[in-house]
Amino acid sequence: TKLKVGILTVSDTVSSGAGPDRSGPRAIAVVNSLSEKLGGANVVATAVVPDEVEEIKDVLQKWSDIDNINLILTLGGTGFTPRDVTPEATKSVIEKEALGLVFAMLQESMKVTPFAMLSRATAGIRGSTLIINMPGNPNAVAECMEALIPALKHALRQIKGDKREKHPRHI
Amino acid sequence: TKLKVGILTVSDTVSSGAGPDRSGPRAIAVVNSLSEKLGGANVVATAVVPDEVEEIKDVLQKWSDIDNINLILTLGGTGFTPRDVTPEATKSVIEKEALGLVFAMLQESMKVTPFAMLSRATAGIRGSTLIINMPGNPNAVAECMEALIPALKHALRQIKGDKREKHPRHI
Amino acid sequence: TKLKVGILTVSDTVSSGAGPDRSGPRAIAVVNSLSEKLGGANVVATAVVPDEVEEIKDVLQKWSDIDNINLILTLGGTGFTPRDVTPEATKSVIEKEALGLVFAMLQESMKVTPFAMLSRATAGIRGSTLIINMPGNPNAVAECMEALIPALKHALRQIKGDKREKHPRHI
Ligand code: NA
Repeated sequence: TKLKVGILTVSDTVSSGAGPDRSGPRAIAVVNSLSEKLGGANVVATAVVPDEVEEIKDVLQKWSDIDNINLILTLGGTGFTPRDVTPEATKSVIEKEALGLVFAMLQESMKVTPFAMLSRATAGIRGSTLIINMPGNPNAVAECMEALIPALKHALRQIKGDKREKHPRHI
Repeated sequence: TKLKVGILTVSDTVSSGAGPDRSGPRAIAVVNSLSEKLGGANVVATAVVPDEVEEIKDVLQKWSDIDNINLILTLGGTGFTPRDVTPEATKSVIEKEALGLVFAMLQESMKVTPFAMLSRATAGIRGSTLIINMPGNPNAVAECMEALIPALKHALRQIKGDKREKHPRHI
Repeated sequence: TKLKVGILTVSDTVSSGAGPDRSGPRAIAVVNSLSEKLGGANVVATAVVPDEVEEIKDVLQKWSDIDNINLILTLGGTGFTPRDVTPEATKSVIEKEALGLVFAMLQESMKVTPFAMLSRATAGIRGSTLIINMPGNPNAVAECMEALIPALKHALRQIKGDKREKHPRHI
């Protein structure tokens, strides 16, 4: 049984039809290219919503609670503009924050550009779903996924309650 | 139009007149020296308050909501003593946390001294104001500002809603 | 007067008697070996609880409020499995979060293994007690303590309200 992945593009521009979704297709390609390292992964859901807390929350809750998606990547809305609210929407639906993943993404992306410090991304667990905020920039998604990939398969097994995965080193 | 900066010294000692404010003047000098890198910045407000949550909150709210200050630097009150409450006061007034800025300051200041891990500083956005907790130590303010300066001008433009600043790499 | 340290093992397995407590004794040995660097420290309390928020909270509150323990190390329950709730229990009892300590542990442990990013550990202050979440893995406890030791003695003095400790560099 392959992991079920959902990709949620958060963008007023894309949502209104004023511009193309460059991040979504790129994120799908990244997940597909990393599928083997994740022990098998399929993007089974994609959606585009505007930068609105309630609309973001609705998708995150449906994908977690009803569709039992294992991993949700949000794209965009993590910066400093007044419309950027993806982390706030995410924090309001996750039950457990996963700050170590945020640390890993910041540490790696700061090596690429100091603008990475402007990320307000969070990550966390809702039920048996892992939700991770990714940047809106298409190139950055690949870099953030690379930072997480050494531990991501393990994380997703732990969330499923796999006992053999309980006590790896350092957790 | 230059950025408006406010410097808030948080210190029982200074507030009570028992000692001079060494951090405030130093922070003003740091901001002035970095003005060009910030696209122009003026310190338009300074204040000293004791280590009291309500008094800290009052100044942060007034400077953000009424005086429309763009950047507020608090100085001090971020450590482990019973009186250190600046991060708690700040968290209660910010609407969006900016953990990436905290990460950048910690990463750089840990290179200077392991005591940097004792910082409980936070940073975040209230309306169109960026609030950043800085250490009380005068020398450390310059080091923390140096850590932020590569992205700070950009951050302050984003907060103002500048659309051209929406999607830099990694945000 | 030596520091009073409490070690709380959080584990369904150990609590139910289904397996030995490997982390607890190891953590005691680590504290004893670092006693001098802490200015003198004694483990004065140990306990084992299952991965239940209320049971974890009860011990943290009793040790902080009644037994006046200076430093509490929790062991385990910081990962991604459904039963891992130590950080949530800890966040509900601390009054001030100490993110810099979390940063220091993540930074050091990520050098040992990328699985360290799966830590959801937090740290913070309740009254005059410092509470730090440690991994359940016995080897990792020593590594995390090593990351903190350069500033830990100082932190514990600050918490006691030692004025001379108020303004070290970078805090
Ligand atoms: Na305003």
